[in-house]
Amino acid sequence: MRPISPASLAPGRGYSNGLLAPPGRMLFVAGQVAWDADARIVSDDFATQFAKALENVVAVVREAGGEPKDVGQLTIYVKDKQSYLGAVAAVGAAYRAHMGKHFPAMALVEVKDLLDPGAQVEIQATAVIP
Amino acid sequence: MRPISPASLAPGRGYSNGLLAPPGRMLFVAGQVAWDADARIVSDDFATQFAKALENVVAVVREAGGEPKDVGQLTIYVKDKQSYLGAVAAVGAAYRAHMGKHFPAMALVEVKDLLDPGAQVEIQATAVIP
Amino acid sequence: MRPISPASLAPGRGYSNGLLAPPGRMLFVAGQVAWDADARIVSDDFATQFAKALENVVAVVREAGGEPKDVGQLTIYVKDKQSYLGAVAAVGAAYRAHMGKHFPAMALVEVKDLLDPGAQVEIQATAVIP
Repeated sequence: MRPISPASLAPGRGYSNGLLAPPGRMLFVAGQVAWDADARIVSDDFATQFAKALENVVAVVREAGGEPKDVGQLTIYVKDKQSYLGAVAAVGAAYRAHMGKHFPAMALVEVKDLLDPGAQVEIQATAVIP
Repeated sequence: MRPISPASLAPGRGYSNGLLAPPGRMLFVAGQVAWDADARIVSDDFATQFAKALENVVAVVREAGGEPKDVGQLTIYVKDKQSYLGAVAAVGAAYRAHMGKHFPAMALVEVKDLLDPGAQVEIQATAVIP
Repeated sequence: MRPISPASLAPGRGYSNGLLAPPGRMLFVAGQVAWDADARIVSDDFATQFAKALENVVAVVREAGGEPKDVGQLTIYVKDKQSYLGAVAAVGAAYRAHMGKHFPAMALVEVKDLLDPGAQVEIQATAVIP
């Protein structure tokens, strides 16, 4: 994928303003929370939840024959923005552990609630598998 | 579309963890609420609203030459999570009536409000039309 | 792109119920707020913020070799629905200035908060570049 960053925009730090995909098949990834294989939230720590949710996204991408670099868009829903801001360094480290230096187009919004009562973050993704 | 479910994830119940689309044309569907053809909300019952919003999504897909099985992603915005949880059996029945056994990648989040004052649920969709 | 509007749905006013894209490359655009090139929010006026956020979306599309007509989907997150409703005429004018008469599939939801403390609106987009 090719990062797109017009001169008129602040360069994305930790995300791409735009990401242009080569031709491929669309992969839609359900909103992932920090579930283990038994649908249990693994921790009540925000950064740990973020890491596990992102690991689950990447697991779906790999199962489809793709790699982290094929992810074009991440939409991150959080229950409490302060939890994210307070954990931003650990979140960044978790991000790099699972996604390396590939930065999709992202949006992060604070919602009123997530479906799973223990989830603090949910990550929805779209990828294009070459 | 091919469901993607890595062994490390709990299998999706009523959704797919991932859905890989064959080549095709992208169809973007606007967030649909329970509007009739005159832009009136048809009911204040959550499950009835869910059914009508989903019917509207499917109407767009069919008008574009597609079928429910071509829907890759649903993002479901609700105003009150409890309304959804309290109606989950009726919602499931409405789902199957319109979508059969095809389960897109989904995310459901509770937002602060929707644009239409009477809407309790809005469903945004992306499909790939073969 | 071809607007899709089944007879059973109210015609979209200022959006398309569905938009069917010709074959092309996917462009994912990060959630854009009213940042200038130095990552500063340009104004605390809602319509001005909307205009700048949309200008940023269009800048990414053009940098990728596309045009406003290639935008298939807009997801608009607002912090306060009343700010949007109170500025709807100015928002419409800003919309036409940047997007002309092309109307993507849209969803607008009120969220609890956006990441940038000064942002009142964030616009996420997906385009298909021919």
